[in-house]
Amino acid sequence: MVPDLLIQNARMLSMVSPAEPWTEELYFLKIRAGVISEIGKMGMLTGGEAAGRRIDAAGALLMPGLVNTHTHAAMTLFRGLADDLPLMTWLQEHIFPAEARFVDEEMVYWCSKLAAAEMILSGTTTVADGYFYEDAAARAFCDAGIRAVAAQGVIDFPAPGVPDPLLNVDAAAAYVERWQGKNRLLTPAVFCHSPYTCSPETLVRAKELAAGAKVPYFIHLAETRQEVKLVQEKYGKSPVALLNDLGVLDRQTICVHCVWLSEEDLALLADSGAAVSSCPESNLKLASGTAPLERLRAKGVPVGLGTDGCASNNDLDMFGEMDACAKIHKGVTEDPTVMPARQVLEMATLTGATILGLGNETGSLVPGKLADCILVDLDQPHLTPFYHPDTLVYAACAADVRTAIINGEVVMENRRICTFDLAETMEKVRRLAGQVKKKPSS
Amino acid sequence: MVPDLLIQNARMLSMVSPAEPWTEELYFLKIRAGVISEIGKMGMLTGGEAAGRRIDAAGALLMPGLVNTHTHAAMTLFRGLADDLPLMTWLQEHIFPAEARFVDEEMVYWCSKLAAAEMILSGTTTVADGYFYEDAAARAFCDAGIRAVAAQGVIDFPAPGVPDPLLNVDAAAAYVERWQGKNRLLTPAVFCHSPYTCSPETLVRAKELAAGAKVPYFIHLAETRQEVKLVQEKYGKSPVALLNDLGVLDRQTICVHCVWLSEEDLALLADSGAAVSSCPESNLKLASGTAPLERLRAKGVPVGLGTDGCASNNDLDMFGEMDACAKIHKGVTEDPTVMPARQVLEMATLTGATILGLGNETGSLVPGKLADCILVDLDQPHLTPFYHPDTLVYAACAADVRTAIINGEVVMENRRICTFDLAETMEKVRRLAGQVKKKPSS
Repeated sequence: MVPDLLIQNARMLSMVSPAEPWTEELYFLKIRAGVISEIGKMGMLTGGEAAGRRIDAAGALLMPGLVNTHTHAAMTLFRGLADDLPLMTWLQEHIFPAEARFVDEEMVYWCSKLAAAEMILSGTTTVADGYFYEDAAARAFCDAGIRAVAAQGVIDFPAPGVPDPLLNVDAAAAYVERWQGKNRLLTPAVFCHSPYTCSPETLVRAKELAAGAKVPYFIHLAETRQEVKLVQEKYGKSPVALLNDLGVLDRQTICVHCVWLSEEDLALLADSGAAVSSCPESNLKLASGTAPLERLRAKGVPVGLGTDGCASNNDLDMFGEMDACAKIHKGVTEDPTVMPARQVLEMATLTGATILGLGNETGSLVPGKLADCILVDLDQPHLTPFYHPDTLVYAACAADVRTAIINGEVVMENRRICTFDLAETMEKVRRLAGQVKKKPSS
Repeated sequence: MVPDLLIQNARMLSMVSPAEPWTEELYFLKIRAGVISEIGKMGMLTGGEAAGRRIDAAGALLMPGLVNTHTHAAMTLFRGLADDLPLMTWLQEHIFPAEARFVDEEMVYWCSKLAAAEMILSGTTTVADGYFYEDAAARAFCDAGIRAVAAQGVIDFPAPGVPDPLLNVDAAAAYVERWQGKNRLLTPAVFCHSPYTCSPETLVRAKELAAGAKVPYFIHLAETRQEVKLVQEKYGKSPVALLNDLGVLDRQTICVHCVWLSEEDLALLADSGAAVSSCPESNLKLASGTAPLERLRAKGVPVGLGTDGCASNNDLDMFGEMDACAKIHKGVTEDPTVMPARQVLEMATLTGATILGLGNETGSLVPGKLADCILVDLDQPHLTPFYHPDTLVYAACAADVRTAIINGEVVMENRRICTFDLAETMEKVRRLAGQVKKKPSS
């Protein structure tokens, strides 16, 4: 069987096992029909193999594409619109009003497409998104060629595209039905905003929808000290306990943030099988705190990494997120051995894929899995010397990603997006931004 | 007077004043004999001006080059050699033995030159370095064309190039004399390692040398909780109080780290006029903690930003350092208004230059100052939209720096180092790294 694509002369980080040795040896990887068909050492190639196309990695590092387990892609429009403000001022005077005015189908399409470009250019090949007008986001991801778990937002307020909150779960149900099984790149999902913006009834109905359709269910959870206090006052229990009692925590639930967890919360999460998506840079920037990743790990809760949206990060760069994640937990715990680089690499690849329900399809390089991979150029002064792949976490950056392949398709090569006209997308977003700037927020 | 270089069509961030407005307008900047001779709006140019050379910024952002106030440049050789280890294991089993074996004049030259390339490529135009064989580092910086405050290390142990600790201050004195006034790019200085590795006599003698020669005096100070305990036990006072009593704290002393400070320490620092160089990523990665930058600021202590060496960061990227600095203090204090982006930009430019004694020469773009500036390409998906220069802190990255000019010389253009053969330097460092890998550390 002739491969569609043969990548050769690559150094290899497969992320298949924590014991993976690091070697100077060069490998090849064959792709057929979007799937990795073979991996081997260069010595095994005769040189005369047929291939639809060849890419000479020239010693670059081949690794699984990164998995961003939480963002709001369309919020690229609000990148840097309002920084360094108290949380409530930021939300109520800037972000919510801007969303109310400027979020529509066109905005979500173009701004999600811009986000897709930024993610692809920084090595992300799978993204979990949650927003409104998610059909438009799903179209943008498919057009950009990025794998996505795209979740329609559910909130008990009038929302973009869903003016009547009584219809929020129905809208999500219709969205899931429209997209399920339609595109190999896209998994529809449900994103309940939070336990303080959704009623128990909404939380449960949305979960029933997700469970019935067998799709992931995302929820912002225990992000701030204030949220915990608020939920505690209203329901007499913690946000985690509330969700647990409502029966919405299970293996298809991804709890985003989880900064403020009691020992009881940790036990509930672990027993439920739910996963966590941690967004360390967003948690720092919004002054929410630092998630107890070591304690979650000790309990066996799977934790993926996410960037959160551009209004609160302000980028979608998983290399920056890995670096921050590995460092912040050491500083806060005063223990330099916590969150070692390899563990963070796993969060950003295989564990991320696993918590999104895609662990058998992506997240590591192994024959039979979908071909989602990136080439990282190690021939850079800031990556010299390169003793070990841990250097990817502490020194590599987004721009070192040379080539990105998703589902077997080359979506970015030599820092150029191959799947769509990036300049057009940037121009569309700049025009939208021009309107945002013009309109005063009050 | 015909300028040697005319940069035109640039957006402008001069860092001259915190009230600087942000505008879409395009500016020009003229350079003559290494000095900024004129800055103005494009409309003021007739188009027919003579110029030795023109650079069309095409809308890129022109800003002062960044000032890295603390590193050990030659330690690029140990980048990623040993990560995620307890501090004492890291130091005593990996870093110290590697330094004892591999640090010589040749290593310092090539590894400092590699560091210079990494810094220039990430927008740094002035660096404060402290290491051994500092003559070789100074030569490397001059050859690379980067402005440097290069400090010879002083420590009460046998050190690379100074086997007899009794001669450590004499060696530094001879070094300072060799370099003072010799090269417009280079300011020699003295780097006393720390109050726990130098005797009071050494600390004082080194300060006398620095004061006599009117050069900066650097010292690692109050970096870890353990250091404070150790010094307290030995001298009955805090490290800051010890230095204050010894009379080594003054306006030409730069205290590096300052993570663990009592209220009394803060007051002593403020009264002394000494400055602080903060290295947030190193402090996190080595699990030292987080410096009380807000409290230092409240007392009026000037604080610059530094990356520290590559063994403990593991890069020299000031854009990454700005991002981390702005975020970590918000997260730790649970206050999203602390360390606003503009303040961090100032730390990384004008304040950095000021604490190094170069505040009248560099750190902002104003006619009469030396021409140290960079062009940042804003035409990137991760910088779109670009509402405000704060986005430089939260979303820009090293690779967005297109062009670097130091002392009026174009040292990097379109991501290519112009001043030396980078490939040769990388090859030299890789060969040295090959030896490091081969030799077991015990």
